Formats: sequence, C-alpha cells, structure tokens
Amino acid sequence: MWSNACSSGQLKKGIMKNLVRGWIAIVLLIFGTAMSTMKVKRVIFFGDSITEAAVKPGGYITRIADALAKKGLGDQYELIGAGIGGNKVYDLYLRMDDDVLAKNPEIVFIFIGVNDVWHKTSFGTGTDADKFERFYTAIIKKLQARNIRVILCTPAVIGEKTDYSNQQDGDMNRYSQIVRNLAAKYSCELVDLRQRFLAYNLKNNPENKESGILTLDRVHLNDQGNQLVADEMLEALLK
Amino acid sequence: MWSNACSSGQLKKGIMKNLVRGWIAIVLLIFGTAMSTMKVKRVIFFGDSITEAAVKPGGYITRIADALAKKGLGDQYELIGAGIGGNKVYDLYLRMDDDVLAKNPEIVFIFIGVNDVWHKTSFGTGTDADKFERFYTAIIKKLQARNIRVILCTPAVIGEKTDYSNQQDGDMNRYSQIVRNLAAKYSCELVDLRQRFLAYNLKNNPENKESGILTLDRVHLNDQGNQLVADEMLEALLK
Amino acid sequence: MWSNACSSGQLKKGIMKNLVRGWIAIVLLIFGTAMSTMKVKRVIFFGDSITEAAVKPGGYITRIADALAKKGLGDQYELIGAGIGGNKVYDLYLRMDDDVLAKNPEIVFIFIGVNDVWHKTSFGTGTDADKFERFYTAIIKKLQARNIRVILCTPAVIGEKTDYSNQQDGDMNRYSQIVRNLAAKYSCELVDLRQRFLAYNLKNNPENKESGILTLDRVHLNDQGNQLVADEMLEALLK
Amino acid sequence: MWSNACSSGQLKKGIMKNLVRGWIAIVLLIFGTAMSTMKVKRVIFFGDSITEAAVKPGGYITRIADALAKKGLGDQYELIGAGIGGNKVYDLYLRMDDDVLAKNPEIVFIFIGVNDVWHKTSFGTGTDADKFERFYTAIIKKLQARNIRVILCTPAVIGEKTDYSNQQDGDMNRYSQIVRNLAAKYSCELVDLRQRFLAYNLKNNPENKESGILTLDRVHLNDQGNQLVADEMLEALLK
Repeated sequence: MWSNACSSGQLKKGIMKNLVRGWIAIVLLIFGTAMSTMKVKRVIFFGDSITEAAVKPGGYITRIADALAKKGLGDQYELIGAGIGGNKVYDLYLRMDDDVLAKNPEIVFIFIGVNDVWHKTSFGTGTDADKFERFYTAIIKKLQARNIRVILCTPAVIGEKTDYSNQQDGDMNRYSQIVRNLAAKYSCELVDLRQRFLAYNLKNNPENKESGILTLDRVHLNDQGNQLVADEMLEALLK
Repeated sequence: MWSNACSSGQLKKGIMKNLVRGWIAIVLLIFGTAMSTMKVKRVIFFGDSITEAAVKPGGYITRIADALAKKGLGDQYELIGAGIGGNKVYDLYLRMDDDVLAKNPEIVFIFIGVNDVWHKTSFGTGTDADKFERFYTAIIKKLQARNIRVILCTPAVIGEKTDYSNQQDGDMNRYSQIVRNLAAKYSCELVDLRQRFLAYNLKNNPENKESGILTLDRVHLNDQGNQLVADEMLEALLK
Repeated sequence: MWSNACSSGQLKKGIMKNLVRGWIAIVLLIFGTAMSTMKVKRVIFFGDSITEAAVKPGGYITRIADALAKKGLGDQYELIGAGIGGNKVYDLYLRMDDDVLAKNPEIVFIFIGVNDVWHKTSFGTGTDADKFERFYTAIIKKLQARNIRVILCTPAVIGEKTDYSNQQDGDMNRYSQIVRNLAAKYSCELVDLRQRFLAYNLKNNPENKESGILTLDRVHLNDQGNQLVADEMLEALLK
Repeated sequence: MWSNACSSGQLKKGIMKNLVRGWIAIVLLIFGTAMSTMKVKRVIFFGDSITEAAVKPGGYITRIADALAKKGLGDQYELIGAGIGGNKVYDLYLRMDDDVLAKNPEIVFIFIGVNDVWHKTSFGTGTDADKFERFYTAIIKKLQARNIRVILCTPAVIGEKTDYSNQQDGDMNRYSQIVRNLAAKYSCELVDLRQRFLAYNLKNNPENKESGILTLDRVHLNDQGNQLVADEMLEALLK
C-alpha cells in the first residue's frame, strides 16, 4: 500500500511548472533503504497530458510505484514523470536535453502521438506522418547513444468505439504502426497500448461507447485506464 | 454489348458544363424502341466526382447501361449522371431542384460523402457529422415527398488499406453508419459500397496497398472499381 | 425607455429551443396600439450565435426595439431573432423556409460568415469561399423572389487586433468582400460591420487587444458591440 | 556578371538529394583567389522550398553571389543554400546540427514560416504560434552560443493581394511579428521581407492580384521576387 511504501521509504516530489501550455510534474519516488547498496534505476516517463496526470494519486505512474513497493522492489526504482499537456513528438525532442538526458535515466518510456493526430482537425497543427517518424527516430537514437533502455508505447485512443468509427482511428492506427515499426527497427521494447485498449474495449464496451470504459473523455485515462497502462508498463519494465 | 445497344436503340447525350468547380455531365441513355408502350424509368445518379466520371466509357453508369442492354432491359431505363467534382452533401441539396427534381426521375441513387470527410484536412472545409445527417435527411425527404424511389450508397474509400489505417477510416466508417441508419429510418434501399469495397480488398489486396485495387488514386475508381459499383447498383436497381 | 415601451405597448416572447446545437430564440416585439391601422413591418434577423444572443436584455435586437420605441416607431416594427449557434451560410439556406419564409417578413437582415471562416481550423469544417458565395446568392434570390427587402451584413470580427494579425483576418476580409460584392450585384443594402468594427477599434483599441473592446471573447458582442451593431442596423432599417 | 564571376573565381556545387519530401541543394560559391590571405566568411541560408530554389540560376542566393562578385567581394564570402521544401521551424531545429553547425558558418540567415502557417489548412499540420516562437528561439540560442551572427527574415507572402484578404494574412502578420520580436529580444538583425513585399505590392500591384508580381504562385519567387530578396539580404549582410 502507498502509506506503507511511504513510511518504509522516502518520497521526494519536485514540481516544475511550465506556464506556457501546461505544467510538468516530476515526482521522484525513491523507495530506497539506508543499507541498500544496489544501484537505483531511474525511469523517466516521457509524454503528453496523459503522462502529466500520471503522477497524481491514481495515475499510472503512481500505480506503478505502488506495485513496485508491494513487490518489495520499491528501493530499486526511481520513477520520474515528464509529461506536458499538448506535447507532440517534436516537443519531446525540443525538451529532451533538459527533461530527460540531464537526469541520466537508465530507462525511458516514450508515450506520445495523440496530439500529433488530434490537433490536425482541432487546431490545424498536427504532425505529418513522415515527420512523426523522423522526430521519433531522432529521440530514440539520442537515447540509445547514451545506452538508455528505450521502451516505446503506441498512442492508445481518441475515442473508445470498437468499430473503427472514431474520427481519428485511421491516423491512430497509422501512427501506431509507425511506432511498432520503429520498435522493431531499433530493437526497442514495445508496449502496444493501442492494441491492448482495443482488446479491452472489445470485451468491456458492448455498447460501443465513445468514452467511460478506459477514458474519461475519449483520451484521458480513468481509473481502469490508468490501471491498464500501469499493468502493461510494469510488465515491460520488469521483463 | 454497347454497340448493339446503340444500334438497336437511341443515345442522347447532353453535357452541361459547370465552370466554377468542375463540370456535370448528364448523359441520357434511352434504349427505347418505336413500338414500346411501357414507361421508361428515369434513374438519376446524384453525387460527386466519382459519379461525374461514371458516364465516360468504362464508368459505372456506362457499365450499368451496358448490362441493362445485355439483359434486354435497355428500353426500360433512362440513366442520368448528375455528379459534380468536389460536391459535399449540402451541394447536392443546393442543386437538387435543378439537377434532380426538374427531371422527374422515378429512381435516385445518392452517392456522396467522400468530400465531406476528405476536405476536413485538405482544405479545412469538410462537413460536421451532425450536419451531414441533417442535409442528407432533407434530400431524402424532398425526394420521397415526390414518391421517388431513393437508393442510398455509403461512401466507398479514401485509401484501400484493410487494417483501418487509412487516415480518414474513422470518419468514413462513422459517416457510412449515418447513411446506413438513414436508410433504415426512411426505408430506403442501401448499397453498402464501403462494406463491399472492404470485403473485396480483404480478398484482393494482400499487400495492404493504398490504391490500385479498386481505385486509381485512393478515391477515384479504376475498371475493377467501376465494375464493382455497377454490379452492386444494378442489383439494387432490379430488386 | 424599455419600461415605457412595455407599458404603452405589448411584448410577446416566444422561445423555441433547439436542443441539438444551440437554441433559437424568437422574440416578437410588437409595440402596436389599439387604434393603429398601419401595417406592422416584420423584420427577421437571420444569423448565428451572435444573433441568437441578440434577443436577450442588452442584445442588439433588444436595443433596436428599444430605440424604435423611443422614436415612437415601436408600433410599426415587429422584430424576430432567427439566430442559431454554429450556423454557417448553408445552414441558413437549409432552414430558411421554416425560419424565414414561413413568417412572411418584409425585411430580412442576413448576418453570417464567422463560422464559415472560423471552423476551418477549429473543426476542419469551414466553408469554401466559392460555396459561401453560392449559398449566399441562393438565399438572396429566394428572398428577393418574394419581394422581401434584404439587408446584408459583413461578418464583424474574429479577434479585435487592428494590425491585421488576427489569425482569420485574411479570410474575414475576403468573405466580407464577397458580401459587399453580392450587395452591389443584387442591389441589397449593406451594413458593413467589418469596416465599422475596424474603424471603431482603430480609435478605441490603442493597445491592440484581441478582445474586450466590442467583443467578450474575440467574436461575441459585449455591450459596446451590441450597441454598435444596433446603431448600424437601425440606420439601415430606417433609411 | 555571373560568367565573369565564374571566370575569376571558382564555383563548387554540391547537391544532396533528400528523397522523402524534397531535395536540398547546397551550392558553395567560393570566389577566393590563390593569394588571398583574408578569412572567407561562410554564410548559410537556412529555410524552406523558397531557399531550396534560391541556388538555381536566377535564385536569390545566386543573385547575391553575383552582386558580391560585381563589388569585388566575391573572394570574401562563401554562400551555402540549406533549404528543404516543406520545412517548418521545427524541421530546421531537427537538422541544424548537420546542415548548419557542422559547417561552422560565420553568418546564418533564417528564413522560415510560410509552411508553419500554410499547412494549417492544406494538411492540418501547421505550427502553433507559441511553438513557432519556442523552436525559433531555440535555433537562435544555439547559433548565438557559437558566436554565429544570426539574421532573421520574416516570412514574405502567401498571396500578394494588398488589402489583407489573402487567406493566411492574419497568421502571416502574427508570425512575422513573432520574428520581429525575437530579433529585438536577441539583438539579431532583421530582414523584414513581409513588410518589404507589401510595400512593393502597394506600388506595383494596382489590380490586387494574388500572384505574378513577386511570386509565381502566391508563395515561390519569380525574378522580381528573387531580386528583391537578394537586395534586402545583401544590404543586411554588408551592414
């Protein structure tokens, strides 16, 4: 449990506010003990508003920390949320020196793509597929050049309908395929959230609803969504 | 065969040019005979550039005329193409008095929707789903008020990939479902081209190509595409 | 004053709610007297959300009614608001039979265009310039065929900056010019709100602010904006 | 003249093809002489398709080289074109290490912005204003950290009409103002092409045409446009 984890461990929180388009919350969850001599693995979750919210109570990063503590692994991992609302792949590239490389992580989860697709029609400022691939590739290469273990996540959903009639389904599938191909090409592990979300909804969304199964609003995660992401990422992390 | 149809019948062609955004070709295909006493059924194909091209040699309207002639039914149907490139559902509504009602058809095929979806990202001028339904409904009601038999067609494809990764697949499925629902609600026959095109591609597009199976360019029909549309429409027409 | 107008006259309000995308308020302001034998002129204001809000207290239609009452002309005009939020020019065309022609007005103000421009980037569903002109023309012709006096209004503003750096300024100027050209071509009176709003802001917006001078939010009118529109429309009405 | 410049100098051309979205032509124009002991200043023109075309005969970089040769300064400057079609500000940021910093220039002209605005409605993939500023700032800082002289250019035109009715005028003015503000903030020289193009068109485009005065197609430069840009940039270069 969280309270036990805190009482037996140590919790550091650092919140850096970004005043332009959102804020970034970085929560350092160190479950180390005084006598531990093993190296703590620093894990950064690099993403958009979904990841920005993930360090809150109930968020997927908080749930991963909780699960690690339960397994007695709390002192081996330091989890850092590096999500900023509205971010697209090129925003990650722009801030990766400050928000990722400067922190010397062992492991980085990249979880991006929703805004690259979504903003096409909501602001006219989405990301072309070829440029999505180009920036994503540049991020992977920079991380791997530092021997950082890179875990890629496909963007999950914009709308939870299961008959492929969510407006952005075509692009979401296309951009997810780009991520899958990059994972194969650069030998990265893959957390295929898009595939997992669809599988979950095929079972649990018989009414073909737009939201409310894994998301609050078609995009941002509810409790079940945060748990599903936490489960999938934890499995990849401990593999 | 076409030549037989022509030699035993009569072919009138009227081409009216629209100089603003395209042109409308109206081809009157009357396979009447002098002694015929039966009423010739006038059929209008009401749509966009796909229908505009359909009156050319090899086009789907030409193929339907050909097939009717082969069946010896050439003298019972007059086929009129009323397609204009770039048209969305509200463009059909605007010109339906002149291009459809003024011609007193017995039967009207409505085949629209591609531009309503496509122009969202290519020009920023697509059609909202609720307004697509509203204008489509208004067209059906006006036609049915004249006791015209209305046959609805779902928009076929923007891209032929079969893994739902064509950019507009989500919207295409959504707008097609609106058409299916309207067919049910207003007791119209339905030619579900979207469903048929996908089924055909699942069999005949093993490489998951974007175009070249039923289309020339992801949207406009090649020979196979024109034949498939002709077959489906003919079956509905003779039902 | 409004209270005098009410005590010496008669006020009928009918509010019809549209639950899909907004609501339409039709307020009938009849300042007739028992002995009056003159014909009351029915005036319809046909537009979008700006006009939908105009029948509320402080709205531009309410202000015109007020001003007419002050001039002792309250018994000569019946003002009807026919604005629906989110409407573009083709929405007006679709509903003009029910919302305008069925009411047999003498005079119709057409005040549309903001959403035709705005929705290009906010939803990908704006209106192409050529189609804006085509539907606008169709509306004018249908009204003039009934001998209705048609008064055109240019769309005012999306953003009040005066250095032509509001995102949609280019399109707003272009679509306004289309309206000016139509007024000339079809001999309609013109209320050039775009020109008037800019002139007002050049005097009263020295800080080049986006909103707050004539609008609440870059588009919808504040008190000053409603007064300016009321003044301009009243002048045209009484010309 | 060009031929004289070539006969008295040396011309090296290197053309690197980018097969994905266009090609980049880098032309090295070294007007050095054998006995010259002065340091040759390397100048990079960093931009989009307008700059990509500028190294061709008649292009603005070619014209600057020509003018320098005429002034007898041909041996003091090496001009490098680093333009790629379709580039937006973040594309420049992504490739600046390879295409600019690796070449150790003394001077860099940044000429970007048209696609950041244009692609909003043509592909739904433009650049938000705040991110335009953020990436532009990052480029300036990286260059200035190397003591490179940075010269900023406002994006010129998308359409040459002078009454602010080109569709993208609002955004073009807004993004140009961002560039002007950055020039002031980071003490960079400014070549205000947008202002200069408008001034030129106000004199030379009395018919308010969309293109043909300084551009071929509303965006890309004709001879007059290339000459105007060359004149303005040369003046800034020699200041």
